[in-house]
Amino acid sequence: MPLAGAAEGLDVARFFLVLAAILVAAKAFGELAERIGQPAVLGELLAGVLLGGSVLGIVPADGMEAELIHVLAELGVLLLLFEIGLETDLKEMFRVGPAALAVAMVGIVVPFAFGVSFWLFAPHASSGSGDPVTAAIFIGATLTATSVGITARVLSDLGRMNTPEARIIIGAAVIDDVLGLVILSVVSGVAAGAVVSFLGIMRTLGVAVGFLVVAVVVGRFLAPRLFDVIVRMRVRYVLVVASIAFALGLAAVAGLAGSALIIGAFAAGLILSGTNQFDTIEHEVRPVASIFAPIFFVSVGSSVNLALLNPSTPAARATLVMAGALILLAVIGKVAAGWAAPWTGFRRLIVGVGMVPRGEVGLIFAEIGRRSGVLGDDVFGAVLLMVMVTTFIAPPTLKALFATPLLEERA
Amino acid sequence: MPLAGAAEGLDVARFFLVLAAILVAAKAFGELAERIGQPAVLGELLAGVLLGGSVLGIVPADGMEAELIHVLAELGVLLLLFEIGLETDLKEMFRVGPAALAVAMVGIVVPFAFGVSFWLFAPHASSGSGDPVTAAIFIGATLTATSVGITARVLSDLGRMNTPEARIIIGAAVIDDVLGLVILSVVSGVAAGAVVSFLGIMRTLGVAVGFLVVAVVVGRFLAPRLFDVIVRMRVRYVLVVASIAFALGLAAVAGLAGSALIIGAFAAGLILSGTNQFDTIEHEVRPVASIFAPIFFVSVGSSVNLALLNPSTPAARATLVMAGALILLAVIGKVAAGWAAPWTGFRRLIVGVGMVPRGEVGLIFAEIGRRSGVLGDDVFGAVLLMVMVTTFIAPPTLKALFATPLLEERA
Repeated sequence: MPLAGAAEGLDVARFFLVLAAILVAAKAFGELAERIGQPAVLGELLAGVLLGGSVLGIVPADGMEAELIHVLAELGVLLLLFEIGLETDLKEMFRVGPAALAVAMVGIVVPFAFGVSFWLFAPHASSGSGDPVTAAIFIGATLTATSVGITARVLSDLGRMNTPEARIIIGAAVIDDVLGLVILSVVSGVAAGAVVSFLGIMRTLGVAVGFLVVAVVVGRFLAPRLFDVIVRMRVRYVLVVASIAFALGLAAVAGLAGSALIIGAFAAGLILSGTNQFDTIEHEVRPVASIFAPIFFVSVGSSVNLALLNPSTPAARATLVMAGALILLAVIGKVAAGWAAPWTGFRRLIVGVGMVPRGEVGLIFAEIGRRSGVLGDDVFGAVLLMVMVTTFIAPPTLKALFATPLLEERA
Repeated sequence: MPLAGAAEGLDVARFFLVLAAILVAAKAFGELAERIGQPAVLGELLAGVLLGGSVLGIVPADGMEAELIHVLAELGVLLLLFEIGLETDLKEMFRVGPAALAVAMVGIVVPFAFGVSFWLFAPHASSGSGDPVTAAIFIGATLTATSVGITARVLSDLGRMNTPEARIIIGAAVIDDVLGLVILSVVSGVAAGAVVSFLGIMRTLGVAVGFLVVAVVVGRFLAPRLFDVIVRMRVRYVLVVASIAFALGLAAVAGLAGSALIIGAFAAGLILSGTNQFDTIEHEVRPVASIFAPIFFVSVGSSVNLALLNPSTPAARATLVMAGALILLAVIGKVAAGWAAPWTGFRRLIVGVGMVPRGEVGLIFAEIGRRSGVLGDDVFGAVLLMVMVTTFIAPPTLKALFATPLLEERA
């Protein structure tokens, strides 16, 4: 309603002001980060902390506005993964496939084992309403997450997208997301007290992997033919609109088939990278992605609760100590994954660190644990701190690692 | 939540599928329209009718999804007006200023007088719960609306944005939007039974005009300096993000100052057309606008209720007859505005027809009338038909007029 400016239940003018503030803060802090030699995404995450509920409270935390920001953020990470898919060389991806799979597997098994053991054998505070085994599984699951969005953006900020390390990290992170979905369905089932069957797990995994394989195989065959027709259409900007509609559609189908939305968007990018028009598509999708991706990173940053860092009470100090232990395990567990494919010659520390940020994926796990009552408030706080710290330390560490001379062997 | 794919209260996957359907239908029907020699926007409006509640029901009519579509549509029309502002030559605009003002004034006074007289003197059906004078004022007000979005898009589709007629139409439509806001506040006051003071009207008008003048004057001075700094920033796509944040911000300020959001976006475009980077800005804003503008046109089309055209009952036939009369008055009243500036030499019929589409502005007026009980269901139906028909006949008529040789004088 351009004339009235206010719809039912939502003040559109106010919402657009929030959106403008998010974009300005993201770019200003991104610039600051770059000026001090850090990836821009770190600045965008910090802009989110500043605009979030624990400081300025500009990014809405609940209600209609929060829901809208959430959808726009989702659109942002979809477009980002779509863009990364477009830039990905499918042949190169296949070449690093086995290594990526190994990295993903180790990066799931080791942190999971760490998390479960920590909770079962170490001294700790309360464990919510559930039994300690369920809580242990949940904490282990949260440690397995990898945020492909954060890592991909860091690699792209650093201009390292075309390194073998980047391909392995992206490949492993995508596999992680597929497996993460399976883990999520298992832990959600456990949290709800359901019996989780091996067959059920295999079915979820089969659908997720099957969707990806079928989409890419069929898509790589059909899409070039389809886009050769679309490019002959007369309406303006038909390529960018058709591509984004394709990415949204495939993301939605992935979601409805029980897989992750961003996997669908990434697959859409992989598919369209095989069209004759992929240069134009990439060129025109980028400005669109550049508007929405910052909303995603600011949104992730805004969920940081700085109050957790305040060690004023003994309980808060206990949470900080628990968080410290979890952070250590989270970092070691993922860095270990860098050494998962001994037959290859990439820089193992870079791959390991690239898998560290838990980002929004970790947040989702933690949130489900909190809501279902499996994680008590103190444990939830510690898990949240682990997610935050792993998300924030990865960008500068990756930057530093790429900048240092080769300390390790490289093929 | 990329992993889960479903947020509270909204199925993100389903929503993205709806979005993909809107984009695909818009482009497919836009292409069809162009192939039969019509402006693409006509196809997008028809795509909206098809996806709307009266046919397929794919575009949601209420609930969270509808609200989201509404915000994205609003974003679309904002970006469209921003783009048009960017393409507008401010000096040329000033040159046609007096003519545009005259066209806008006549295009408001004549349809208003027609509407009021029609309701007070012609035989008609029920008039809702209010008294006939209030209803008459409401119908008159609805007839005054002009949809700058529809008209601007038609002119742009036809490649006629740089004609004197286009400048006058855009100028007059923008003035119409400013005055439309004043009219809206008056009729809303009348509908609520409030006493509307002359002073109050002047204050609303003063704020709306004052905002536009101050924003453009100050902006044209400051923006080039600001963007000369921004362009030196290192983060990628900072120009397009900063420009769109600027447009959103100015739209929001316009809205909060009691003016129309799209006026703020148009002003933002006018302001940034004075920067040294306006070529790059325009180049990068276009793909973004091309994604969201179709959502707006499909959304407008989706509010069409085809059931209104079914003459099965005597009451339905009476509504159709009333609608026919209103459509005649609506067209004649706006076309007459083409002859409002006798001292200029533009093609008067084109300017008049350009002012005809009521679009979403007319919808807003009619909806307020219905909700406040001033307009009965039958009258509301007739007014809605008038809005629909004026919106749909303008694009092909403008196309035909531009294509015909000059039947009238032109300077």
